Amino acid sequence: MTIRTGFDGPRICFLGDSFVQGLGDPEFRGWVGRVLQAAAPGATAFNLGVRRDSSAQVLRRCWPEVGARVLPGADNRLVVSVGANDAMEEAGVPRVAHHDTLANLAALLDGARKRGLGALVVGPPPVVCGGAAHLDRLRALVPAMAGLCADAGVPFVDVTGALAGDPVWTAEARAGDGAHPGAGGYGRLAELVLAGGFRAWAGPGPGPDGFGPERT
Amino acid sequence: MTIRTGFDGPRICFLGDSFVQGLGDPEFRGWVGRVLQAAAPGATAFNLGVRRDSSAQVLRRCWPEVGARVLPGADNRLVVSVGANDAMEEAGVPRVAHHDTLANLAALLDGARKRGLGALVVGPPPVVCGGAAHLDRLRALVPAMAGLCADAGVPFVDVTGALAGDPVWTAEARAGDGAHPGAGGYGRLAELVLAGGFRAWAGPGPGPDGFGPERT
Repeated sequence: MTIRTGFDGPRICFLGDSFVQGLGDPEFRGWVGRVLQAAAPGATAFNLGVRRDSSAQVLRRCWPEVGARVLPGADNRLVVSVGANDAMEEAGVPRVAHHDTLANLAALLDGARKRGLGALVVGPPPVVCGGAAHLDRLRALVPAMAGLCADAGVPFVDVTGALAGDPVWTAEARAGDGAHPGAGGYGRLAELVLAGGFRAWAGPGPGPDGFGPERT
Repeated sequence: MTIRTGFDGPRICFLGDSFVQGLGDPEFRGWVGRVLQAAAPGATAFNLGVRRDSSAQVLRRCWPEVGARVLPGADNRLVVSVGANDAMEEAGVPRVAHHDTLANLAALLDGARKRGLGALVVGPPPVVCGGAAHLDRLRALVPAMAGLCADAGVPFVDVTGALAGDPVWTAEARAGDGAHPGAGGYGRLAELVLAGGFRAWAGPGPGPDGFGPERT
């Protein structure tokens, strides 16, 4: 009475906000389900996206939740996407300031490195109803996140600008709640993530630019 | 710069094991994504299935994880499916004994009631490679779980026997790792959950047999 070997690809936790969660996708799988289907069919995947979460909130719940999903000796990995909620204003100021978003992301990547988890970062998708100031804040975060990831040896996928100019993403977001697209927009985001490095990173062993379990 | 109202249906946490997670589904959404698409398009859904988790492990991580996903004042709900891993043998005995599985499920439902979360329980899917003794243990759990749920006023969906005799479920499991089906088997499980009460339960307000936020 044993379960035969199978689905022994990487175990990947996806951490982030409502975009990671796939909110608004009528198929209930978002870009996460789509990149897995395309590039990691043998993966064991955990979607830990939580609507409205800032990078500070993600950091707070990250290790207890990831810890319950990591298997010692397995190819455990982490995909992080934060920032869109950080840049939203509350009482006239961003919920999380630029440098704090970067510090939280650095802490997430440092924790992943210490635990031997290969990591990949996806930049913040734009919030169509967020206005010009919100998009400017995201555009300022992107190169800073890219630099931080380069220093950490972690692949970074920039999606912000491409989606802000994408007719499918923007039309679906406008037709929905002003922020979240439908199946087409999540499909477009999935294409960016796949082309931006996920496909190579999710292959067997450590990704070309990521750190893998053998470096723990 | 505000996000317009939208996707303001129930917030549903799905707690359980690899079947809840949808392991083996090439579309990476499992029965959970399928029942949501069919019956709760406006829901905010959180898949907290973890491969190999017993009811004891689910109980241990339940409230910290659900707590990070509940929104005060919202229509917060919980779907639980445990038991298949409990009934697997380790060192010649089930990982979790029959009465302990029931005690853990009772504790989960009691916690949901105290927190004002409407709940629904899905019985354990069969493990095709688990053998006759494993299936017998699940068949013994089903009426006991149903009784426990009836006492708690929570809908219970029996799927065990129907899936054990389902040609799609069993063929896909055998073609996979011996336990987990593919898209067809998860589709079949989704149909059982929809027909067994999820469709009515997931509608606006508390389900017909469930308890809702107004009873907190």
